[in-house]
Amino acid sequence: MKQVSILGAGLSASSLIKYMLDHAAEHQWKIRVGDVSLAMAQKKVDGHPNGEAFVFDVKNEQQVTEVVKSSELVISLLPAMFHPIVAKACVEYGTHMVTASYVSKEMKALHDQAVEKGIILLNEIGVDPGIDHMSAMQVLDRLRAEGAEIIEFESSTGGLVAPKYDNTPWNYKFTWNPRNVVLAGQGNSQFLHNGKYKYIPYNKLFERYERIEVLDLGEFEVYPNRDSLGYRSIYGLDQVQTMFRGTIRRPGFCKAWNTFVQLGMTSDDYIFHNSKTATYREFINSYLAYDVVKPVEDKIAAYLKVDIDSDLMYKLRWLGIFKNEVIGLDNATPAQILQQLLEKKWSLESDDKDMIVMQHQFVYELKGKRKKIYSSLVVYGEDQVHTAMSITVGIPAAIASKMILTGKFDGQKGVLIPTIKPIYEPVLKELEAYKVKFIDEEIDWQ
Amino acid sequence: MKQVSILGAGLSASSLIKYMLDHAAEHQWKIRVGDVSLAMAQKKVDGHPNGEAFVFDVKNEQQVTEVVKSSELVISLLPAMFHPIVAKACVEYGTHMVTASYVSKEMKALHDQAVEKGIILLNEIGVDPGIDHMSAMQVLDRLRAEGAEIIEFESSTGGLVAPKYDNTPWNYKFTWNPRNVVLAGQGNSQFLHNGKYKYIPYNKLFERYERIEVLDLGEFEVYPNRDSLGYRSIYGLDQVQTMFRGTIRRPGFCKAWNTFVQLGMTSDDYIFHNSKTATYREFINSYLAYDVVKPVEDKIAAYLKVDIDSDLMYKLRWLGIFKNEVIGLDNATPAQILQQLLEKKWSLESDDKDMIVMQHQFVYELKGKRKKIYSSLVVYGEDQVHTAMSITVGIPAAIASKMILTGKFDGQKGVLIPTIKPIYEPVLKELEAYKVKFIDEEIDWQ
Repeated sequence: MKQVSILGAGLSASSLIKYMLDHAAEHQWKIRVGDVSLAMAQKKVDGHPNGEAFVFDVKNEQQVTEVVKSSELVISLLPAMFHPIVAKACVEYGTHMVTASYVSKEMKALHDQAVEKGIILLNEIGVDPGIDHMSAMQVLDRLRAEGAEIIEFESSTGGLVAPKYDNTPWNYKFTWNPRNVVLAGQGNSQFLHNGKYKYIPYNKLFERYERIEVLDLGEFEVYPNRDSLGYRSIYGLDQVQTMFRGTIRRPGFCKAWNTFVQLGMTSDDYIFHNSKTATYREFINSYLAYDVVKPVEDKIAAYLKVDIDSDLMYKLRWLGIFKNEVIGLDNATPAQILQQLLEKKWSLESDDKDMIVMQHQFVYELKGKRKKIYSSLVVYGEDQVHTAMSITVGIPAAIASKMILTGKFDGQKGVLIPTIKPIYEPVLKELEAYKVKFIDEEIDWQ
Repeated sequence: MKQVSILGAGLSASSLIKYMLDHAAEHQWKIRVGDVSLAMAQKKVDGHPNGEAFVFDVKNEQQVTEVVKSSELVISLLPAMFHPIVAKACVEYGTHMVTASYVSKEMKALHDQAVEKGIILLNEIGVDPGIDHMSAMQVLDRLRAEGAEIIEFESSTGGLVAPKYDNTPWNYKFTWNPRNVVLAGQGNSQFLHNGKYKYIPYNKLFERYERIEVLDLGEFEVYPNRDSLGYRSIYGLDQVQTMFRGTIRRPGFCKAWNTFVQLGMTSDDYIFHNSKTATYREFINSYLAYDVVKPVEDKIAAYLKVDIDSDLMYKLRWLGIFKNEVIGLDNATPAQILQQLLEKKWSLESDDKDMIVMQHQFVYELKGKRKKIYSSLVVYGEDQVHTAMSITVGIPAAIASKMILTGKFDGQKGVLIPTIKPIYEPVLKELEAYKVKFIDEEIDWQ
């Protein structure tokens, strides 16, 4: 039996672990699932004969060595900063590794050693990054093979609540790490538009969104990701005129979220005085100029130049940000306070289902004609365990792991991401069985 | 002869070095002036019989040791990050040290050792920090000695061009490190207003200015410093209702400067693509949405919601930011590009003189009556060498150095700042001879 170790058994691991267990008997795998919480690992293994749960601590060097040494392949779903620890052991003991995280500098530095050992360290094989790379490259490679010149490329992804359960004024619920949602976009964004570099500071990010339509789901808005240009060369798009990557929300979200950005309430840089005893009302009031007469709501509406009866103000009131409710957090940053409030209102309820929405837009020229392809994906969660997020993050990594273990990727080695055909083609093909299938629409363009 | 070493002989060192040389014969001092540039140090020493110029490199450990070991006192005007290197040697060899910089953590950590050695490491004895501490504490200590309760304290400082030479639409010229001016305020600001903590993110900083009047100089505007609360305990103001520290500019500056902040052009976090070949016009256009028809000027005016003929737009045009002039900088950040442009327009001309403006506002209650004191200082530069900045930064440090050397501060030891009477009183008194004298105006309040 080949041993496969999965490190991390959190929410996003469910679909991945299920896939690996489902295929374990056929391929004679022993699937060991390690987590700091044994209960969590046991729950995911669920007594499967080919599975085994164990307590795993990435800071225990000896344990990392043992796990890696005894495994044919390790799938790491640990927080991204821990990947290099595991990867170094993999390089030493000749064990393959798969992650859904971005390639860090430390990871990249292991490429030559991995090649030498003949192993694969495959990263960015989740949803975003992951499915986005694979689906975009499949279209790009096909168009270029036909002789097309790519003029524009835009790509956006969002984790949202499925329409049937979309019953809040923000049209948003947390389907992923809430902290990342609160901190999203901090820094500067850059992209390329009609041959011109464009930069957007954080304070303007949620005012510079675009509108898109996705299949029969109607309108969405897309705000720019931090760095749209990082994959320009990797995608072979050095000559492209427009390159943009963004995050998808429902209309009205960005403008309302911008309130917190403008006020400075998403900052994670300092401790808010009295976060234990202050109320949410005092919290928001701390970002507004002192006024003896005007209530907070009036100050906010004036500050944002919106009507007190506007949808935007309703969204804010609905969150409870104006309530005289005590925050009760010790030494919390503004971002932590905001997150606590949002988690009360934006959490998925027990029977809610989530969805992943992704859309690429390609403008290309072929034989003197300009055309545009909208390539769209919608994946719905099956239930609270196999959410759309868990499926789209975990199944690509699981399929790729299977292919490594069964020798389908033989010939590949080193630190890889799934932008190459030998990887993305079979993975995308099998993903269709999991309802992960893009729908392309093509129109004439200008 | 007692040896005194002055490290750093840049523009701000002129008045300090002159003072030390002027008093050298009387006190039998040998004044050694060290700089990376021997020419610079020689120019400042100017052949004075008690002076000596030398090449100094703070990264040369052996030289630091030699200089500190042979000196009775070292005045460091090096960039603040180098102070701890010198301070550690001072603690080891029992040499006093004076700086005009904020006390860093590393400096603070040397307190006990300095006390043990019986030496003084006196910091924050320039203008801001320096004169602000001393003058504020003098009033505060006097009021409290009379039994007053301090209700509000606000303190603002600005380095500006003297009115006679104030001939630009921005009413501003660089009188200090231009880079600091471009980067000013990045991060979050916090202060206390009527008992409420107030926080302002960078993107709102230049919209939340206050108006003040200073003596017969007319109106100024004041934007908040990053941390107004750091000195609350040190000043003994834990019970104060309002505490605010700010930076002084002429009216209209903040709103116009805010353009660059809003657009993101003050960022120092990333390299602007093509900074070598792009024009300033392309630079600013990179921060605006793509538009086929509208010229940049129209986009900016619309973005800022101002008239194309407004003063604000005139200020921007006057800078040349819309010109098709090539930037020509290698791998520059937006802040570096902006700084280069500003240096062309905001530099002092050869016969210009600068000024320092400072104003404290104290509201206090004594015997049931509430009063307000405006304590104001205006210092004009004498010429291009002895600028107001050089005088107000250098003379307090020089006076304090003299007092340490002549035993006037005997009994003081450790890491100090001039918030204590034994230091601020004699220094402020002697500063009057250099036209550094506050004028107090008191009125009934409410």
